[in-house]
Amino acid sequence: MSIAGQLNPPTRLLLGPGPSDVHPRVLTAMATPLLGHLDPQFLVLMNETQDMLRQAFRTSNQLTFPVSATGMAGMETCVVNLVEPGDKIVVCVKGFFGGRIVEVAERAGADITRLDCPWGQVFNLDAIRDTLKKVRPKVLAIVQAETSTGAWQPIQELGKLCHEHDALLLVDSVTALGCVPLEVDAWEIDAVYSCTQKGLSCPPGLSPVTFSPRAVEAIAKRKTKVQSWYLDVTMVQRYWGADRFYHHTAPITMIYALREGLRIVLEEGLEARWQRHLRNHRALKAGLEAMGLEYSAAAGHQLPQLNAVKIPAGVDDLKARGQLLTEFGIEVGGGLGDFKGKVWRIGLMGHNSRPNCVVQVLAALEHCLLKQGCKVQPGAGVAAANKVYAA
Amino acid sequence: MSIAGQLNPPTRLLLGPGPSDVHPRVLTAMATPLLGHLDPQFLVLMNETQDMLRQAFRTSNQLTFPVSATGMAGMETCVVNLVEPGDKIVVCVKGFFGGRIVEVAERAGADITRLDCPWGQVFNLDAIRDTLKKVRPKVLAIVQAETSTGAWQPIQELGKLCHEHDALLLVDSVTALGCVPLEVDAWEIDAVYSCTQKGLSCPPGLSPVTFSPRAVEAIAKRKTKVQSWYLDVTMVQRYWGADRFYHHTAPITMIYALREGLRIVLEEGLEARWQRHLRNHRALKAGLEAMGLEYSAAAGHQLPQLNAVKIPAGVDDLKARGQLLTEFGIEVGGGLGDFKGKVWRIGLMGHNSRPNCVVQVLAALEHCLLKQGCKVQPGAGVAAANKVYAA
Repeated sequence: MSIAGQLNPPTRLLLGPGPSDVHPRVLTAMATPLLGHLDPQFLVLMNETQDMLRQAFRTSNQLTFPVSATGMAGMETCVVNLVEPGDKIVVCVKGFFGGRIVEVAERAGADITRLDCPWGQVFNLDAIRDTLKKVRPKVLAIVQAETSTGAWQPIQELGKLCHEHDALLLVDSVTALGCVPLEVDAWEIDAVYSCTQKGLSCPPGLSPVTFSPRAVEAIAKRKTKVQSWYLDVTMVQRYWGADRFYHHTAPITMIYALREGLRIVLEEGLEARWQRHLRNHRALKAGLEAMGLEYSAAAGHQLPQLNAVKIPAGVDDLKARGQLLTEFGIEVGGGLGDFKGKVWRIGLMGHNSRPNCVVQVLAALEHCLLKQGCKVQPGAGVAAANKVYAA
Repeated sequence: MSIAGQLNPPTRLLLGPGPSDVHPRVLTAMATPLLGHLDPQFLVLMNETQDMLRQAFRTSNQLTFPVSATGMAGMETCVVNLVEPGDKIVVCVKGFFGGRIVEVAERAGADITRLDCPWGQVFNLDAIRDTLKKVRPKVLAIVQAETSTGAWQPIQELGKLCHEHDALLLVDSVTALGCVPLEVDAWEIDAVYSCTQKGLSCPPGLSPVTFSPRAVEAIAKRKTKVQSWYLDVTMVQRYWGADRFYHHTAPITMIYALREGLRIVLEEGLEARWQRHLRNHRALKAGLEAMGLEYSAAAGHQLPQLNAVKIPAGVDDLKARGQLLTEFGIEVGGGLGDFKGKVWRIGLMGHNSRPNCVVQVLAALEHCLLKQGCKVQPGAGVAAANKVYAA
């Protein structure tokens, strides 16, 4: 028998693609003793969490709740509930996570039309309109904030366009919620999934989802049962709804965390939060560019919360990130899929979208680049960032 | 906009069917700041957690990990990975959760043979042997600790029996792990799922599973992909295995919790833990019977960690449980399915299998029964329990 030692992880600053650091108030909430998952007082907390989640999503959708699993389960929840075997789905792929939707839809037996655009780019409405006209799908799926490339897909007009073609719009907002504008009702989005460990500054473990009345109607008209029992929203909604029908045991502590995370988001206000993410992004971007680094996402479509930059020629990816981690305790993300070994992904998400995070990562990165012989003007990164803050 | 108030749940003692109270050390562990889910130091914690989980399961199975979702997702993980559409499965149903396995297997397209026995009873080997001979299934599924009835199914001989008939044995140990003996290797069990919020005294949110080499081989031989992307163990094992292939973001804080919970289990030692559960059960049982309450599970097959007793005639179920909750802060469980309104379920699980929990619930229950006009001799329950402790 061997028993592990006391939990004693090193101190990190999580500036990768997520998880991001948990807000201290959320950590404290997680040390709160449990209520039973059917306790009348816990049901109040569930209602409050749903209510605040609707505000964060900017929706009045009744069917809004956190799936009791991580973001990828939220993706699967949306796909397997909206799609029956043989149903047509158009999946817009501009990075790793669009590809994931294809994989999940394949397992749901969907008839898939895959629309590709180069990694780092975003789709324009015309390409999507043409495909909708030609394919006439039940669902069109797209990623708002593509975590693998840092590209920010405009989606304001997409819901209307989909509805003109009798399609439902499914949006992946895993890296978007709580960081950049997302207006579920105003933009006519039918289904959204997100996560807790990025813009909401909670630990990973839940996937907030919301379904429009139009999506709920489509689900009600299914001819077959949803293939996943655990992710079947028609049952889960009875658990989260008025009749509190026992389905599974809610992850109580994670609900405490999400509730606290949402309180913090709403106390700040969504608009203020989005502005804060933009401001810190501008400072980081000025600093990175002053150090000669180039963004991999197209100009005008760069996510403030996820800054993907090309690794300079001659720089050893693992060595640089290893040094950041061990000497500075800072985690930044490597590339994923096609971008593996080619980009770094620097996240400024939720609580971590702060000036001190920006200057720390710029200073540490400068050290690592100099160490590898890059031509970086010492101090240029931090100076450029501070110039933005001074403006 | 409306923001919920500060998290401030009332104090509870959770003596229902789960969740049970979280051990204070686990609560503290959950307030620990995050490591990234691919941080080398987090990978060490994952390995340690897997290693301790194997010890708790008494197995050397390589494929042992916590599913990133609650116990019901563990059930679905086992079923959808072991069973392809058309595969034969025998499901032994002696309560609510056996019925759940049937529902999940239906959605997996299994060819199901349902074997029933009365609620509160357990299966004998002969009935199972006959069915195995007749049906020749790929999988036989059974619940070790049926949470709806409190019945304790002997399973020591079942693995051997299944293997003599070329079937895999799938066991639901949701309410068993960490409370009563479970010897995965010695008993030749091929797949087990459990949860964190009962015998392990962690919050709900993960489902520990383990698969024998025989089960892994059966999964490798599948002709179709597992219908659930999220729960596909062939991918999840690459994430938890040596190559650390990105699949989803592990619920880091819940892994911290499970790791701490397992440390506590192993520090106590499994045999000592099982003995402790038996001792406190005997005391509670003596007390309940002294108060005139009758167990609903058959004699000789009553779970120490889940004491299901018949609600005395004339007693208002909701009123009594409401009074326990609001006056004493004690949660006990109501009945489920066929037993709704007919039984109370009193859990003494993990950290909550303690003498002070036993005497509290006996004293509080006495008060509630007297209030409803039951003929209970004041003090008899606590006296009977203390007599057991004195022995």
